[in-house]
Amino acid sequence: MNASTVQAIAKQSRLAAQQLSSASESMRNLALSNMADSLESVKDRVMEINAQEVLKARQEGQSDAMTKRLTIDEKVFQYMVSRLKKVAQRPDPLNRVLEGHTNPAGLRVCKKSVPLGVIGIIYESRPNVTTDAAGVCIKSGNAVILRGGSEALQTNTLLTDAMIAGAVSAGLPQHAIQIIRMPGHEAVGELLKMDDYIDVLIPRGGKGLIKRIAEGTRIPVIKHYDGICHLYIAADADPMQAVELAVNSKCQSVQTCNALETLLVDKKCAKLMLPLLQTGFNSNNIELRGCEETQKLLHDISPATEEDWHTEYLASILSVKIVNSIEEAIDHINHYGSGHTDGIVTQSLNTAQQFEQQVDSASVMINASTRLSGGGDYGLGSVVGISTDKLHVRGPVGSDELTTYKWVAYGNGHLRG
Amino acid sequence: MNASTVQAIAKQSRLAAQQLSSASESMRNLALSNMADSLESVKDRVMEINAQEVLKARQEGQSDAMTKRLTIDEKVFQYMVSRLKKVAQRPDPLNRVLEGHTNPAGLRVCKKSVPLGVIGIIYESRPNVTTDAAGVCIKSGNAVILRGGSEALQTNTLLTDAMIAGAVSAGLPQHAIQIIRMPGHEAVGELLKMDDYIDVLIPRGGKGLIKRIAEGTRIPVIKHYDGICHLYIAADADPMQAVELAVNSKCQSVQTCNALETLLVDKKCAKLMLPLLQTGFNSNNIELRGCEETQKLLHDISPATEEDWHTEYLASILSVKIVNSIEEAIDHINHYGSGHTDGIVTQSLNTAQQFEQQVDSASVMINASTRLSGGGDYGLGSVVGISTDKLHVRGPVGSDELTTYKWVAYGNGHLRG
Repeated sequence: MNASTVQAIAKQSRLAAQQLSSASESMRNLALSNMADSLESVKDRVMEINAQEVLKARQEGQSDAMTKRLTIDEKVFQYMVSRLKKVAQRPDPLNRVLEGHTNPAGLRVCKKSVPLGVIGIIYESRPNVTTDAAGVCIKSGNAVILRGGSEALQTNTLLTDAMIAGAVSAGLPQHAIQIIRMPGHEAVGELLKMDDYIDVLIPRGGKGLIKRIAEGTRIPVIKHYDGICHLYIAADADPMQAVELAVNSKCQSVQTCNALETLLVDKKCAKLMLPLLQTGFNSNNIELRGCEETQKLLHDISPATEEDWHTEYLASILSVKIVNSIEEAIDHINHYGSGHTDGIVTQSLNTAQQFEQQVDSASVMINASTRLSGGGDYGLGSVVGISTDKLHVRGPVGSDELTTYKWVAYGNGHLRG
Repeated sequence: MNASTVQAIAKQSRLAAQQLSSASESMRNLALSNMADSLESVKDRVMEINAQEVLKARQEGQSDAMTKRLTIDEKVFQYMVSRLKKVAQRPDPLNRVLEGHTNPAGLRVCKKSVPLGVIGIIYESRPNVTTDAAGVCIKSGNAVILRGGSEALQTNTLLTDAMIAGAVSAGLPQHAIQIIRMPGHEAVGELLKMDDYIDVLIPRGGKGLIKRIAEGTRIPVIKHYDGICHLYIAADADPMQAVELAVNSKCQSVQTCNALETLLVDKKCAKLMLPLLQTGFNSNNIELRGCEETQKLLHDISPATEEDWHTEYLASILSVKIVNSIEEAIDHINHYGSGHTDGIVTQSLNTAQQFEQQVDSASVMINASTRLSGGGDYGLGSVVGISTDKLHVRGPVGSDELTTYKWVAYGNGHLRG
């Protein structure tokens, strides 16, 4: 594959997007359902090819975490299929009338949701992104260009070919779903130049990948940066609830972007709370790193440095800071946080509302685990990422978020006077 | 003013934005009303200073068009004041519940509109942008940093100081509205580096200015590029309506971004339509440039080159092309257009719907003048531009469009299982 081939793919996607813009809801949902069936029909082959790629990755000395992400087992396969079926059942994100009125002269104006056009998804090893991303893109009437990691290329290609067959059998254009089949970085570089044909890029992976892409292209990028998530235990928090929420936010799955990284404890309840919290974290093997005040109250914990407040550990480490007030908690979060998910434990409605208003984050959790932020618990279904941007989409990126809108005005010879 | 001063301004705006995030609707509306009153109180001084700046611009040999844009006469002044009062009366763009549900476990989730944060507006000579932009930013709870053209610096500073006094008297923070008071390009360069403090930049001016800004910053930019607007006269168009719409779209104000630049005429009605259209345009002194087929039907018109189809004339020139079908019209628009405003004249609902779905533009006008696209006729009130982007905001940028949202989840100790 050379530059002209990447350009050929991008042009085909642009044409497919124009055709897709008229595809009815029932046609798109039939396509999703056929894509699920088509996946089922190649299941044995997918498992076989995937097992070969997993073996190869192991032989090449890849980490356990990486080979685990790469693996499609029975459960992952069923999950991929079921997500396509579920996205088919969701309400149509297109042709929603978002606003509308008739002006004094009788011109009827409405603002309606339409597809973005062509979406490029660049991702690392998880093959389920292949099917999830194609699903939300087709649901929202977008053409999609997939670009997965080299280590999963055969698996991803097989999954994509099956989905293409399903989509085409429902009447969607041949190039509604495409995958870049060549390994190596060159093709990604070419993709980044396709600003005439691609409307938005969504990179899924480490911060380095996202940064490289965002800085190397004129195409708008929906970015999924760090989740440096905080929980603030207010002075009036229910102690048991606070411990449960802190432990669940940190420990339920330490490697996820909505896991807790920094715990803020109000000075007025620190003496009571910190020993209870330490017990909870100790029994989950979490290393605590505390501010000076925290170290005075808890023994045997390491000091937190300035760098700790900036760190997304994605590991069994938690930084702990005592704050003098809710204002200090909010300032800390807005300064060190990444605007992903931040929570408070409080019994006071006023305190909750102040936190809700002033914390500048995509998700604000009141007496709820930070782990509950995301497409699933928000009722969005499949998502292709969690945006840490503030423009266009903030938080989970589902099929609704892959739309834009157009204004349509119906007149009867209306002129401007 | 040096770099550290621009940074100081940006930091102050960030702090002001945090305070503004809790400003109630009534406080923001009172601020807008006080801003209008405060402007009235400095009217004589504004007129005086503005007259000096207009004189200076004339003496420096600036064009009539430029000095006209710079001038605040009685009508412009009243317009500026009335726009602030009107924006105060509009529905609150903040705290709208955009979505919401209670999940099966009883977690209450809602997605509500919130301010973007800090908005930088970089604009050229029209001083009414100063008041319009401040108005929509304050309405939407954003802190605003204004940066107008050097030629209007004294006028803009006076207007801004009056607005600041009004805003502060309503209880808004001192730095909710700021203006960069130093002339020259250096300050703009510094502003572009403030990605830690500024959430979005909106440049208003020529394509060169917008491009320079978009390519010189990591801050997201809402772009207002060309308006290469089309009108397609379908085979079944009502001839008189078609002529009226074409003439109004082109001639009502040739220098505006939603004025017609290319007319597409269906082959099946070209013989009938073109002479009627030529008569209409001739009496408005519009120069026609035609494709080969058009030149066969109309005499004494110059040929249109490839470059003409790409050109936003903003002048009394119109390119004319005969197309074989609606598909060819749509392809031409999607290829050469700028996604701003494109219209059709037709009596067929099917034809109108095909055009509405497949033309990839911010505004699609059915039997209505392209000149009717915009905040006013769409019921948005004051706008700070017309976005030709597809992400975040498309078309008119009013106070609703200067918001983002956050997800807020209210639990009662809800954990992830």
